[in-house]
Amino acid sequence: MITSAGNARVRAAIQLKQKARARREMGAFLTEGVKMFLEAPEEQIREIYVSESFSCQDQELKRAVTEKMERLPYEMVSEPVFQKMSDTCTPQGILCVMEAQHYVPADLLKKEAPLLLLLENIQDPGNLGTMMRAGEGAGIDGLILSRDTADIYNPKTVRATMGSIYRVPFLYAQDFGAMMARLKEAGICIYAAHLQGETDYDRCDFHGGSAFLIGNEAKGLTGGTAARADRYMKIPMAGEVESLNAGIAAAILMYEAARQRRRQR
Amino acid sequence: MITSAGNARVRAAIQLKQKARARREMGAFLTEGVKMFLEAPEEQIREIYVSESFSCQDQELKRAVTEKMERLPYEMVSEPVFQKMSDTCTPQGILCVMEAQHYVPADLLKKEAPLLLLLENIQDPGNLGTMMRAGEGAGIDGLILSRDTADIYNPKTVRATMGSIYRVPFLYAQDFGAMMARLKEAGICIYAAHLQGETDYDRCDFHGGSAFLIGNEAKGLTGGTAARADRYMKIPMAGEVESLNAGIAAAILMYEAARQRRRQR
Repeated sequence: MITSAGNARVRAAIQLKQKARARREMGAFLTEGVKMFLEAPEEQIREIYVSESFSCQDQELKRAVTEKMERLPYEMVSEPVFQKMSDTCTPQGILCVMEAQHYVPADLLKKEAPLLLLLENIQDPGNLGTMMRAGEGAGIDGLILSRDTADIYNPKTVRATMGSIYRVPFLYAQDFGAMMARLKEAGICIYAAHLQGETDYDRCDFHGGSAFLIGNEAKGLTGGTAARADRYMKIPMAGEVESLNAGIAAAILMYEAARQRRRQR
Repeated sequence: MITSAGNARVRAAIQLKQKARARREMGAFLTEGVKMFLEAPEEQIREIYVSESFSCQDQELKRAVTEKMERLPYEMVSEPVFQKMSDTCTPQGILCVMEAQHYVPADLLKKEAPLLLLLENIQDPGNLGTMMRAGEGAGIDGLILSRDTADIYNPKTVRATMGSIYRVPFLYAQDFGAMMARLKEAGICIYAAHLQGETDYDRCDFHGGSAFLIGNEAKGLTGGTAARADRYMKIPMAGEVESLNAGIAAAILMYEAARQRRRQR
């Protein structure tokens, strides 16, 4: 059992928790908790750490955890050391160091009419994770992120994805504008919810390849990015509401696309 | 200028920030920031505190703030004292003590076909505020909250409403079941998004009086509450997503109702 936070592997895990740069350099990220452990693809798991006090109330989950742990090597760590590795106040006592995934555009463009979410400079880690989770639910083919968007492997983001991080392809576009041009070439229509939008979002037809642009929580889309959109649309707002939370807006658009795609064109 | 955090009014404001009980006892709550100050109904403002270092970059906003401050009495406080009263890391330098509002069921049932959100045991303050904001955008007539739901006057909730807290009527139901019975008597159909739901949510007709039940973030609806719903429906989910974030689910349902209501029946 590891009982010192000075242990080199523990220190590396703490770096992975704290720093996006460490995650990039090591090509790894952390996932915490029983659900995230159970959903973790085995071939992506590099290390497993279990707190000495780990227990699981739910008998069914406990059986599943035990079964997976029997197949894979893991390391016991003392309670105080686990606390230091964990990003939560009340850790569930199990965390994994996972292999980061590297997707290419083709991974997001496999299907005939892809549905994509394009995020520019989203800063709230929880919001980012929630969007990925809602996106998987709505059936999107992937997420494209501007390079100034928060790190999707931030522990708070990973937790908010509730496991979608293992399944939804994503790309950080070094050049967001060039990526948008590439999507257009692939026949994908880029929609922006925008104050200048005249068409209600639900009057647009999302049966074809569609990408939704969502901008920074406070500042919205940059002018340059908005100018590259194919169509502006609006999400009608009652009362005195000026804008919606970025994650809420993204979910409304993605679920409208899903709704239309469940129907005949 | 107040320079001591021991000042009785400053201590009272700090209590309002920290404790739901203090908010209940004083019948007041705090709002922070320029936008919340500008949108605050004047008749509800009890006190205004401005940090000695308050400034506002945006000239248009600054003019509006100055104009409102000229009409209303306010108190200057020193920077360190303001920090103690503020709930944010980088305070904008202006906060108000606001009169709490007390709504009655009739306030939520004024219109012919009300659209309501029913929240059972929602715990995340930010999520709660985001739901109120999205609800105002979708045109809901009010929020009904179970008594174990988080305090809507929590500073984090108030901030997340982005001003909707001033405008959207809400009620804490001492007896959630009795309140549901009352809504049914008023001809309102209560919908629950539920694993047992067979009808897709967008196949339901929300033109009539409609209320959406949303349960606790981790545990969902209690059995008793779910049993009182008129109809179960499902939000279809692709991939391996088991459930959506409560705020996201609420927004998808409310905006589907708004979408239907913009169309002819």
